[in-house]
Amino acid sequence: MRILGLDPGLRHTGWGVIEVFGNRLVHVANGVVRTDSALSLAERLVQIYEGLSAVVKTYSPLEAAVEETFVNRNPVSTLKLGQARGSVLLSASHAGLSVAEYSPNLVKKSVVGAGHAGKEQVQMMVGVLLPGVKLEGADAADALAVAVCHAHHRETDARIARSLAQGA
Amino acid sequence: MRILGLDPGLRHTGWGVIEVFGNRLVHVANGVVRTDSALSLAERLVQIYEGLSAVVKTYSPLEAAVEETFVNRNPVSTLKLGQARGSVLLSASHAGLSVAEYSPNLVKKSVVGAGHAGKEQVQMMVGVLLPGVKLEGADAADALAVAVCHAHHRETDARIARSLAQGA
Repeated sequence: MRILGLDPGLRHTGWGVIEVFGNRLVHVANGVVRTDSALSLAERLVQIYEGLSAVVKTYSPLEAAVEETFVNRNPVSTLKLGQARGSVLLSASHAGLSVAEYSPNLVKKSVVGAGHAGKEQVQMMVGVLLPGVKLEGADAADALAVAVCHAHHRETDARIARSLAQGA
Repeated sequence: MRILGLDPGLRHTGWGVIEVFGNRLVHVANGVVRTDSALSLAERLVQIYEGLSAVVKTYSPLEAAVEETFVNRNPVSTLKLGQARGSVLLSASHAGLSVAEYSPNLVKKSVVGAGHAGKEQVQMMVGVLLPGVKLEGADAADALAVAVCHAHHRETDARIARSLAQGA
């Protein structure tokens, strides 16, 4: 099972693909889709779409995961991020992937063990959880972190579904 | 020249197509792409994309226009609208249309003659400017209004470009 983690941004969208073998997680690839700030907003959103479509085509993930977004900040940034995020969610969903969303705290808790971990701790633990990974920057590390979070939680959800089915 | 006006929203995205013959504007079609609130956000963004792709395929507009967004409101709404707006801009741009953005005041001024017109005035004037139009609701009227605004301003821009070329 391959999972695509995504960290949306208008300038940089981080992505990371991991493979789940039972309890074991293996790093497949990670990177960043960059957009050209000289282009119009609409053209930059197409760059995000095309960059992520290429990632999906190359690595064939089955499920995607994205962090939920903080909104308690500058409304102009929130709108900009929202537009990038819309393109990211659309790209994954349009490619046929299911898209799960997780709160930033749950992502940190899954990776570091604490909900209030810093960026550096997340990066370090992504390196520990995915041995041999070479991170293409902080956005790619965040994308891998949400992929790891999804790997943990989809397994838990599947276990709950199984025990409910057995109980029925 | 066919222009597609767009009024993005997660629940309802208004659209309107007009044709420009010199100074004359003719209504072609208008409508609303609705999303199913029972679906996930990512799936709803795909519904917007697919709805607008069908509109572009049916009416073959060459250029698109969208209103710029107010951000001085609830940040949760701003994020939601941003995500819908990202999908709308991406849909149009990915279909090969250029996408122009206009401030709400400029749109109102183009249609009503005043920047602080109310919704009802905009709807009424869209009916006057596009005789025979049957509006599919307020979102479709807003979409036609931004299409009309683009028709006026692209002509002005073209005239400026021509006189600059003649002066050179």
